[in-house]
Amino acid sequence: MSETENSFFTIKWDNDEVVLLDQRKLPDFEVYERYNSVQAVADAIKTMVVRGAPAIGVTAAYGVALAAIEFKGSVHDIIAACDVLGATRPTAVNLFWSIDRMKKVVIASDGEFEAVLKEAHAIFEEDIAACKKMGAIGAAHFKDGFTVLTHCNAGALATAGWGTALGVIRSAVAEGKNIKVIADETRPRLQGANLTAWELSKEGIDVTVISDNAAASLMRLKKIDAVVVGADRIAANGDTCNKIGTYSVALAANAAGIPFYVAAPLSTIDIDCATGDDIPIEYREDEEVTHIHGVRILPEGVKVLNPAFDVTPGKYITAIFTEAGEISGNYIEGFKNLCRK
Amino acid sequence: MSETENSFFTIKWDNDEVVLLDQRKLPDFEVYERYNSVQAVADAIKTMVVRGAPAIGVTAAYGVALAAIEFKGSVHDIIAACDVLGATRPTAVNLFWSIDRMKKVVIASDGEFEAVLKEAHAIFEEDIAACKKMGAIGAAHFKDGFTVLTHCNAGALATAGWGTALGVIRSAVAEGKNIKVIADETRPRLQGANLTAWELSKEGIDVTVISDNAAASLMRLKKIDAVVVGADRIAANGDTCNKIGTYSVALAANAAGIPFYVAAPLSTIDIDCATGDDIPIEYREDEEVTHIHGVRILPEGVKVLNPAFDVTPGKYITAIFTEAGEISGNYIEGFKNLCRK
Repeated sequence: MSETENSFFTIKWDNDEVVLLDQRKLPDFEVYERYNSVQAVADAIKTMVVRGAPAIGVTAAYGVALAAIEFKGSVHDIIAACDVLGATRPTAVNLFWSIDRMKKVVIASDGEFEAVLKEAHAIFEEDIAACKKMGAIGAAHFKDGFTVLTHCNAGALATAGWGTALGVIRSAVAEGKNIKVIADETRPRLQGANLTAWELSKEGIDVTVISDNAAASLMRLKKIDAVVVGADRIAANGDTCNKIGTYSVALAANAAGIPFYVAAPLSTIDIDCATGDDIPIEYREDEEVTHIHGVRILPEGVKVLNPAFDVTPGKYITAIFTEAGEISGNYIEGFKNLCRK
Repeated sequence: MSETENSFFTIKWDNDEVVLLDQRKLPDFEVYERYNSVQAVADAIKTMVVRGAPAIGVTAAYGVALAAIEFKGSVHDIIAACDVLGATRPTAVNLFWSIDRMKKVVIASDGEFEAVLKEAHAIFEEDIAACKKMGAIGAAHFKDGFTVLTHCNAGALATAGWGTALGVIRSAVAEGKNIKVIADETRPRLQGANLTAWELSKEGIDVTVISDNAAASLMRLKKIDAVVVGADRIAANGDTCNKIGTYSVALAANAAGIPFYVAAPLSTIDIDCATGDDIPIEYREDEEVTHIHGVRILPEGVKVLNPAFDVTPGKYITAIFTEAGEISGNYIEGFKNLCRK
């Protein structure tokens, strides 16, 4: 979704700086921050000013463009800066995919800023195009009148624009279908309540927020017609790593006979990971669980475990939508065929 | 758990008044409130000063004792007061079971206060005895070194003392077993974070809190050995209504091959409900989802759905522990046999 189509943007290159919407302040404040150093961009990714696998990849690409200004002429220093960006978060593979792609251009162009920035812009534009393609592919599965559940935020805020899971919903709505969205609030960081509800209600898409605990029961009671989520990394066998709680949603959809879809660009597929067990899972700080919006909700001294992602085995996934087509059933074969295209 | 065994109590009859620990203020403040009218007790149940199916039943019984003072000599008025208590919350059947039992004594004794109070005390004492019995029965399934997951609070705070699900854990610990507890925080009201973590850490039982979303993944990764939860109402076929999110936990335990136990007194079994579909589910106010500890977490105007309970089909329940024994497999037959005892 471009800035003109929408009233907000997630990431923008402007006047040799990276501009990011500070997603930690939503839905209360819509604040844009400007970044002019690669370290500042790395910190922004780490502290989740920007989040969402594709958005992290695009932001890192622009971070490399900043490095090309900062370390003008030193390929060695620009490559070192790439590694700083790569050390920010471990799970979403789009980050490493984007940085690898940028490194190749840095080396081939001998660190020339224009070439590096052009590649970052290409990654940005390709992300929006990919979201729109997978959106159209996925939307074919959503009938008029469907109620669709989503977990976390895989929307315009998680990408360069349009969104992956929410892109499918946007595409269905753009086709004139009446779609109602149920958004899991998505503890601990509440991306569903803070981000998905914000971006959908901003454009008039019907959205209702529930506590994560309510999702399974609504599915059992047949109040949901389909589920669509994004992904942070997909293994070669279709096992999908996404925001913690996604696996619960998949189990409940499976038990209720409701289709469970994943929408993700090809850059999210990591064929070097044979199964989900090979995907590194980030554990984040206790404060995400012990405090909500600065208010302590746990007795002092009580221990916390805070994994940020989980793995949904491929067998629970009805289909994966990518910009090159949809895959279901045998994911190993399916991904090979897509890559051959 | 009596007051002397513990440093807190949930419900107490004292000097012709009902004293309740205000659970809405935990874990920050341990405040006890005194009630001397049946309407005030009804309000306390409705606003969740006290909660938990058995605790609601016991509190209502003492509420009837207050009515016997308030409406001295008028059986008609005392019975009308029973109906006020019965209209507070719709799902937990222990409330109706307790009120029915109290009504019989009100009628038989012609509203005599001493007889009514004696019956309320009996319900209180029987609840503790039942919890200790089901605790010992359930604890036999927990091996030394087990990590046990629980959802919501089915502890001393949810009963007259000892607890149902947490009673099983307490009994295992009392037998000298090393048990670690994983407590789901239990959105929207956070009973796991606010109550379970508080009461277990108060007595030195090892407890770690997780967001509800993390439970399924921890089970898939075999970091949990067993699950035990309480119940608000159990249908004749074993379908169990409990705090929203319990069904998700049961699905995940089932997928991981981990035993999923329910601990509940016989008063929770409602043979008049053939299946879980017959159990009325309470929907509570939006504010439980839109706000956490008074802080708004959702954009203004976004819709909310807030069911307080869900139903776990009996087929996902490994065994139900009651004070009269444990039941598994064919619950219809099992409950009949228990009632024959």
